[in-house]
Amino acid sequence: MLNYRAIVNILSALLLFLAGALLIPAAVAYIYADASLDAFLYTAGITLLVGGVGFLITRKSQEIRARDGFLVVTFGWILFALLGALPFTISGFIPSYTDAFFETMSGFTTTGASILTNIEGLPHGLLFWRSLTHWLGGMGIILLSLAILPLLGVGGMQLFKAEVPGPTPDKLTPRIKHTAELLWGVYVLISVVEAVLLRLAGMNWFDAICHTFGTMATGGFSTKNTSIGHYNSAPIDIIIIVFMIIAGTNFALHYRVLRGKLFSYWHDREALVFIGIIAFASLLVGVEVYRHSNLGIGRAVRDSVFQVVSIITTTGYGTADYEKWSTFSQLVLFLLMFVGGSAGSTGGGIKVIRIIILIKFGFNELKRLIHPQAVLPVRIGNMAVPREIVTNISGFFLFYMALTVLGVLVMSALGLDLISAAGSVAATISNIGPGLGAVGPTDNYALIPDAGKWFLSFLMLAGRLELYTVLILFSPAFWKK
Amino acid sequence: MLNYRAIVNILSALLLFLAGALLIPAAVAYIYADASLDAFLYTAGITLLVGGVGFLITRKSQEIRARDGFLVVTFGWILFALLGALPFTISGFIPSYTDAFFETMSGFTTTGASILTNIEGLPHGLLFWRSLTHWLGGMGIILLSLAILPLLGVGGMQLFKAEVPGPTPDKLTPRIKHTAELLWGVYVLISVVEAVLLRLAGMNWFDAICHTFGTMATGGFSTKNTSIGHYNSAPIDIIIIVFMIIAGTNFALHYRVLRGKLFSYWHDREALVFIGIIAFASLLVGVEVYRHSNLGIGRAVRDSVFQVVSIITTTGYGTADYEKWSTFSQLVLFLLMFVGGSAGSTGGGIKVIRIIILIKFGFNELKRLIHPQAVLPVRIGNMAVPREIVTNISGFFLFYMALTVLGVLVMSALGLDLISAAGSVAATISNIGPGLGAVGPTDNYALIPDAGKWFLSFLMLAGRLELYTVLILFSPAFWKK
Repeated sequence: MLNYRAIVNILSALLLFLAGALLIPAAVAYIYADASLDAFLYTAGITLLVGGVGFLITRKSQEIRARDGFLVVTFGWILFALLGALPFTISGFIPSYTDAFFETMSGFTTTGASILTNIEGLPHGLLFWRSLTHWLGGMGIILLSLAILPLLGVGGMQLFKAEVPGPTPDKLTPRIKHTAELLWGVYVLISVVEAVLLRLAGMNWFDAICHTFGTMATGGFSTKNTSIGHYNSAPIDIIIIVFMIIAGTNFALHYRVLRGKLFSYWHDREALVFIGIIAFASLLVGVEVYRHSNLGIGRAVRDSVFQVVSIITTTGYGTADYEKWSTFSQLVLFLLMFVGGSAGSTGGGIKVIRIIILIKFGFNELKRLIHPQAVLPVRIGNMAVPREIVTNISGFFLFYMALTVLGVLVMSALGLDLISAAGSVAATISNIGPGLGAVGPTDNYALIPDAGKWFLSFLMLAGRLELYTVLILFSPAFWKK
Repeated sequence: MLNYRAIVNILSALLLFLAGALLIPAAVAYIYADASLDAFLYTAGITLLVGGVGFLITRKSQEIRARDGFLVVTFGWILFALLGALPFTISGFIPSYTDAFFETMSGFTTTGASILTNIEGLPHGLLFWRSLTHWLGGMGIILLSLAILPLLGVGGMQLFKAEVPGPTPDKLTPRIKHTAELLWGVYVLISVVEAVLLRLAGMNWFDAICHTFGTMATGGFSTKNTSIGHYNSAPIDIIIIVFMIIAGTNFALHYRVLRGKLFSYWHDREALVFIGIIAFASLLVGVEVYRHSNLGIGRAVRDSVFQVVSIITTTGYGTADYEKWSTFSQLVLFLLMFVGGSAGSTGGGIKVIRIIILIKFGFNELKRLIHPQAVLPVRIGNMAVPREIVTNISGFFLFYMALTVLGVLVMSALGLDLISAAGSVAATISNIGPGLGAVGPTDNYALIPDAGKWFLSFLMLAGRLELYTVLILFSPAFWKK
């Protein structure tokens, strides 16, 4: 049965971490002497109190087991969003708690969907917190996808158990701790490099750090109303394109490259296909943008590559209003929303490795009609993918489609037109942020009805946690002793 | 290797059958003394010549084998559309051969998508031929889905091999012949009943027969510009609703009921779910239509049920312009386009049994995360569905989605807006006919560019032949010795 004592213990420890994290934007608010300082201190106090009491009454709990992990992960994200939303509401800058929760869930799930109509009206402390939720969420996701979910039998990285750095999994906790140290080191290091480059390219330190948080987490919150388009700067666009691609690539690969195995990207099938899709989609969109606008070829390429990368990595930064582009270009971007990044990255979506396996699986089925007796495993490079994993991925795809369809039904029942409904669902379940129609790149989620905001928050969470982690909690079998 | 001689032999025999079938509209043209008589006689002559020569030079060929079957089926449909289109062009009523081919492929695949802007301007002979292509296509589909495809390892009915009437499959030909006799008997019998009822409800014999052809094949070609809405008659609406449901149900069940096993529908899981979906969708749409219009409750129910049944059975007859309904209602109808009828019916789409199996498969995957060691087959009633069939159906769903996505990309590249592109693809791959947007219920396919007409014809064929039958021909392994 479930080990509730241990679950509460870990969740409490996470809250103590959150209380500490809240002191960072408090410091920023203090430095800029802005109106949000008290809100952070109150929230940190509340979080410390809840986490501290929970931790003390559950001391000496046992090691958790795999099944408990689903609850820890899901409720960890929910608690962070519930408490992390308080500074926005307490400070009065986002008076509706529904809006504040949506914004914070969007942050911690690295989605980047916003209800703010005037981002630049927020004080520095709140802007910093908003971006920091991305970065912390990204940290959580790297650990989750590379160290935790494979042990639970979920996620694209289950294929690569052996490739994840760290000791072999005898006990959960030491392995997870060790993997965290290694990967977070990589994450912090790359983040520092990006922030310095953005500073050199002309951003001030505050904006450079906030945009680094948004890039590395493939989040997408900006400190500017017009996102990256605000700077209208080729160097900044290029830096962010490169780091979005890095953030959308498996961090286990980055770790290996930093350890000196420089050709690790080249030997990784998923990374190659990921780059291939980006190149091909950029070509398709670039030609359309060039043909249908009076931009020069350089600008057309820059805008197209930026938008393609921003969407396939599920970041959601913008430099152009792609809703003014041709239907075909918009459709390509819409499809990229579902593709998403690589497994083991901070990107969302279905993930490139799953798409590869599903395509190979489909062709295998055709071959099986011609040779009904043949045994035809799906192969990635030299490896035959175990049948259970192919089945698991087929199921994942089905749930992704089912949840998308359900989502579009719900959003259209709430009054959205078809394009906006489809856009809002794709942009949240795949953790992108901006969608199409009423929630397009120049709009925001402010006008979505409250019920829709809660529902889309659920989609962000489900998409971020690879569906199974959340959906399993709705299964009666999960709760049985 | 492939047995080309035998393949040509069977295709030639089919052409001889087609030549005979062409004499029926010729007789109609003669009776009504209309302008299309010569066109039918010319076409029958050409078809007789091609089929006769082909048949004579391939006499004494061997029994065909399973793999040859894919070629016979696909090229059978293509040849029928190529030659069946000639009367429209020769008579001058559809001058463009592309248009005529589209219309005829739409007929034989029981789709019902039309390029005609003034249906009532056609002479009786051509109108009759148009409807007859539906009915003949429906005959082909019943035989295909119940007797041929299961032997090739394709199609939803592979589950029910044992339930198909006829001798056990020692040799292909005698089994197929016997099954054909039994099932076509049922098909003809139900058709006669419908035609008589429509005559009694006030249609003239010509219209009653043509609309029977369109209903029984779940085709959707009408002899009137405003489809069934032309009659504005409750009895006619109700008759057509009932017979669309019958046509969308497994004909093996009808056979058993006619043999006296009256509760066969009740014991069939797929038939129950099919009725359940119709009831639930009608309720959703009915409430919306009632709320958003000033129709009385009776009329709102009648229009809603008609449209839900027309679309889920993939017929495509219309009594109301559903594009004036709410976004939510249109979305429900759009989703029903993918569901489709039962396996072993004349309906297209993914098919109810596949949807049931996919849903059960998804929940099984959730359970497997909780109990990784458990063996959990998908169950339909008392039967455990073999793993290969679940895999085959997952693959089918993937190809359905992939082809839909590709289709929407192609159609939007040809200049259609998103809604029209998605509507035209869904309406053709699922063999419905009217879609959304520019190809909605009050529009037609006349304005689609020629390349788009050929592409949509391909989608109609692929969808009608359960994808695998057509896609396998693109696999190099199929053509290897």
